Order: sequence, then structure tokens, then C-alpha cells
Amino acid sequence: MVGPFGGVTAAQLLQSAMQHPDRLGEPVALTVNFAAPVADGEIRFLARPVRTNRSTQHWIIEAHQPSGVVSTATAVFAVRRETWSALEAVMPADVPAPDAVPRTPPREVPAWLRHYDMRFVDGPFPDVFDEQEQTHSRSCLWLRDLPERPLDFASLTLMSNVFVPRIFIRRHRRSLAGTVSLTTYFHADSALLAQVGSGHVLGVAKALNYRHGYFDQTGELWSPDGQLLVSTHQLVYFKD
Amino acid sequence: MVGPFGGVTAAQLLQSAMQHPDRLGEPVALTVNFAAPVADGEIRFLARPVRTNRSTQHWIIEAHQPSGVVSTATAVFAVRRETWSALEAVMPADVPAPDAVPRTPPREVPAWLRHYDMRFVDGPFPDVFDEQEQTHSRSCLWLRDLPERPLDFASLTLMSNVFVPRIFIRRHRRSLAGTVSLTTYFHADSALLAQVGSGHVLGVAKALNYRHGYFDQTGELWSPDGQLLVSTHQLVYFKD
Repeated sequence: MVGPFGGVTAAQLLQSAMQHPDRLGEPVALTVNFAAPVADGEIRFLARPVRTNRSTQHWIIEAHQPSGVVSTATAVFAVRRETWSALEAVMPADVPAPDAVPRTPPREVPAWLRHYDMRFVDGPFPDVFDEQEQTHSRSCLWLRDLPERPLDFASLTLMSNVFVPRIFIRRHRRSLAGTVSLTTYFHADSALLAQVGSGHVLGVAKALNYRHGYFDQTGELWSPDGQLLVSTHQLVYFKD
Repeated sequence: MVGPFGGVTAAQLLQSAMQHPDRLGEPVALTVNFAAPVADGEIRFLARPVRTNRSTQHWIIEAHQPSGVVSTATAVFAVRRETWSALEAVMPADVPAPDAVPRTPPREVPAWLRHYDMRFVDGPFPDVFDEQEQTHSRSCLWLRDLPERPLDFASLTLMSNVFVPRIFIRRHRRSLAGTVSLTTYFHADSALLAQVGSGHVLGVAKALNYRHGYFDQTGELWSPDGQLLVSTHQLVYFKD
């Protein structure tokens, strides 16, 4: 991959708005663009609430390093109310419980994988790059922070980016790939997050289309009892 | 709906980067946040290329009116190369050709509908709000500019937002709803757009989850010969 785990940068960008004294409500939408690899060393986050309405707030957030802007983000925060609610997305059926799925042995590289308990039901990262092209790139896994900690908006943001570039699963081929833009919609509010606590969540991901150096993939994070916590989409750069 | 057609604002935001003298390549990702209704009168677009790499460029774009910031956007532009390509998303099968589907009579309101030739195969905007809740909110339609004009990135952006809030199709109920965040990934480059020309494109859309005042929906625009031109996602505010 091109740089360090983009999920960390995305969560830091969000967190810089979360911790801002003028913050209103909770995040409902976040888009992060990865403009350059984050280098070891100082990084500064600049979060600006550019419009605050009665129940919504709009943010522009930038991450700066000595080399210039390394990431940009926009976020929408909102004060939510209870309303009619309904689910149209479909949680995968017949998925065994987390305890019934062996934990995937952590790989040495990348290092961030060691911070997750991952239990793949389908579509793990390939053990060998045998260049046997697959017909699809779907993954389904149980996922939990290591060490355990209660879910919050930062960890949901990180988890939105644990779905490694689908091209590795599709092509079983070593290549350069990195997220350029990541969008996450938060269906969960803090009350729902508190209900889920520090248990496993179910993650699913798939690619849509690979063309001329870029592809897109889409993912969902589900609570064990079938609540959609997050939907997430990203555009990924790749080299042949 | 809350304001004028957000597709126009989204296309204007993109266009302000397209027309910038420092622009590199073509758009691959665009996210627009609708911060406030656009009022009749002056609107200024401020497009800043915040990072230019060898083959990618990152933009922050703002739309200002006397009331303040009304929209924000980020965009990623890129110089693309031919690579291995593959499609995983599935175009709807058994869709009759555009000529075999009657044109949906244009409604008076909203006015922007008159600027499209729309031929619904499934999931039209309800004729009456009979409050009969449906089991899903999927739409499938052939779509073309009126008057006819060749597809470009601006029109693809507009078309990304023609999928009216899914809640109307799901609930058949009059309510307030408006897009707060719209993300579009461009799989089409200008060469592919030139191939499609001014013909109809096939649009599909569906909702994922409605919860506590917000829902998300996802859409695709396909060329008649089965190329995915755009995938698009949005978060929508709604009132009961």
C-alpha cells in the first residue's frame, strides 16, 4: 500500500472536529481525501465549522505536514431525533457467530492489522499471490478492536477502512493500491454505539468497477443484532 | 424538497475546478455537502487546488452567497492510464430499450424535471401520496438531457442527483427531504463519454437504511452497452 493506514488519518480528521469547542451534534457524513502519504513526524489538523444551522453543522478539515496538505476532509454533523426508521440493505444471512469462526492469524505487515481481532467468513486477504484471478472480491468478517474498547465514531471510521483494496482479493496479484477518497455515512448515533459496546461487528465489502487505474468499493458495518451502523464507499488508485 | 435542484449546485462546484487554469486531468471523485438552500441571486465559487501530485490533484471548493457558505465540495482529479479493467457491479438485466419505454410525462414541479427525458422501467416518483408504504425504494430508468447534449462531467454530476429522495418512493408520503452529502465516483473518462454521446443512460438507485432523520441511497449510471459510467452515494435528511 502507498502509505500508512488511512483509517488512522481519517479518524484523526474526524476527531479534530469532534474535539472542537464549537462542535454541534454527532457526525452523519464524512469524506476524506488522501492527497499524499503521511510521513513520520509532525502533523497538524485544521478543522473549520464553515456553516452551523439549527440542527446541522458543516466542516472542512485539513491535515498539514511540512510537505503541504496531506489529507482533506468534509464532515456533516447533526443533532438527530427519533423518526420513522426502516432498513432496506440486507445483512448477510447464515453467518456463524464470532465464537464459531477462528481468528485470522495476524500478519506482520501492515502493522495495523495486529490491532484488530478479525474472523473471516469469506474473502480473506490472500495468503499467496498466485495470480489466479477470482470472479469477485467480496469479503465478510467479524471485527473487533484489540485491545477491546467500546465502539465510538473514531473506531467506526477506522473500521470503514479495514476493507483492504478489493483488487488484492480479486486478482491475487501483488500491485500498488491506495485509497484516494473515503466516504462514510453514520447510521449509528452514540446511543446505538453504547448498545453495541465492545462486541464484534460484521463487516462486508465488495468492488463495483475497476477501470483505467481506479476502482470503487463499498462496505457495511453491522451490529450482531442486525442494525446497520455504517455504510462506506471508497475510490482506490491502483497500478497494474 | 428543501432548496433548488442540488445537482445544479454540484455541477457548478465541479465546473469551477474544471475551468480553473491550474487544473490537472479529469475528475475521479467528487463530494458535495449542501450546507444551506441556495437562494436566488449572486453565488460565488471558490476552487482551490490544495495539492497537485504527478498524476492527481486535490481540490477544496466552496460556494458562497451573502448569507455565508451554502455548499462545500472536495474533488480528486487524475490523469488516467489504460490498465487491467473489470466489472463486478451488475447492470439490470431484461431492461427494454429506451424506445420501448414510454417517456414519463414531465411534472410541473420541480422545474428541473422538464430538462430530462425520463423513461421509468421501475420505481417512478409516486403519482399520488397514498401513504401506502412499499417494501423497497428501487428505481430503474432511462435518462437523457432535454434538449439533447453530449454527456460531460457536469451532466454526469447532475444525473447523479436525479434519483429523488428514496423515502418518497418507499413511503408514498409527503414529507420534507433533502440531500446533505453527495459523492460521485467517475469511472468514465472523456473518451468513454464521447462514445456514449447524447444517448440515453440507464440509472438505478436504492436506499440502504433510514434512521433518526437521515437515510442513505446509492445509484449507478450505465451506458446502454453495459459500461458503468458513475457510481454515486448520498446521505439525505428527512422529516417525518
